[in-house]
Amino acid sequence: MSVTDELLENNARYAESFSGPLPLPPARKVAVVACMDARLDVYRILGLAEGEAHVIRNAGGVVTDDEIRSLAISQRLLGTEEIILIHHTDCGMLTFTDDGFTQSIQDETGLTPQWSAEAFADLDTDVRQSIARIRANPFVPKKDSVRGFVFDVATGKLNEVV
Amino acid sequence: MSVTDELLENNARYAESFSGPLPLPPARKVAVVACMDARLDVYRILGLAEGEAHVIRNAGGVVTDDEIRSLAISQRLLGTEEIILIHHTDCGMLTFTDDGFTQSIQDETGLTPQWSAEAFADLDTDVRQSIARIRANPFVPKKDSVRGFVFDVATGKLNEVV
Repeated sequence: MSVTDELLENNARYAESFSGPLPLPPARKVAVVACMDARLDVYRILGLAEGEAHVIRNAGGVVTDDEIRSLAISQRLLGTEEIILIHHTDCGMLTFTDDGFTQSIQDETGLTPQWSAEAFADLDTDVRQSIARIRANPFVPKKDSVRGFVFDVATGKLNEVV
Repeated sequence: MSVTDELLENNARYAESFSGPLPLPPARKVAVVACMDARLDVYRILGLAEGEAHVIRNAGGVVTDDEIRSLAISQRLLGTEEIILIHHTDCGMLTFTDDGFTQSIQDETGLTPQWSAEAFADLDTDVRQSIARIRANPFVPKKDSVRGFVFDVATGKLNEVV
């Protein structure tokens, strides 16, 4: 039995007490961008209930074209107005370099990815850069509340950077 | 007081009973790719605890270069072996077209985004396409368990597509 099968059994139990459906637009009009890290249960960290906020996640919680795409759809079509960006301590992205990762892929597959791994050397600096990418982007219209945080995996606290 | 400020107060309460830190690599060796939709609380839907699975999310739960980047890092550097892809009923991506969205942005900003909105007309078809993009990609090494589902926002159930 795979882990996926076990998680599907969990889903069957979840559905037993499920009360839906909720409306499509996020009730709190917030979009969260966060790292994919397994320790970040974004709904619990922010006390969000189902239906309240969009949650966008990737390796690092960095802002690339795909996060801009998601934020543009979130704000333009589904009414969100605030953005919360979350990086975290002990992040995997601090443990390697873009060049090293690309080289290891090339060594193994014989192919070079056309994307960069988006690794970073300093958490606060990358939070600032990700926030700056959102602020500078013409396709994300609402920028009155765009705030960046580092989640501390030892304490559970969000510490504001910018 | 902004919604962000309210969510930060929730975080302060979360931190009071927080017990960390957990290890960096996901304990269940699973990566989930899901839509950013506010109604999808992925940890609850799959019965995941903190520290168990990577969670990657964007508008639609589609697979673009950025999801491949995240999956490559997840498998190559952090040891995940299974992939679960989740789209859902009543998805916002079913309500518009790429061309219409691009045109509305162009009308408002005078600029055309270089990315496509990745809208889709049929859920099952897009689940199959997203799974196919993962299977066809040379940078994601582990493909023994790559499964795609549609989450029903009315019942809370995951229905397998591929």
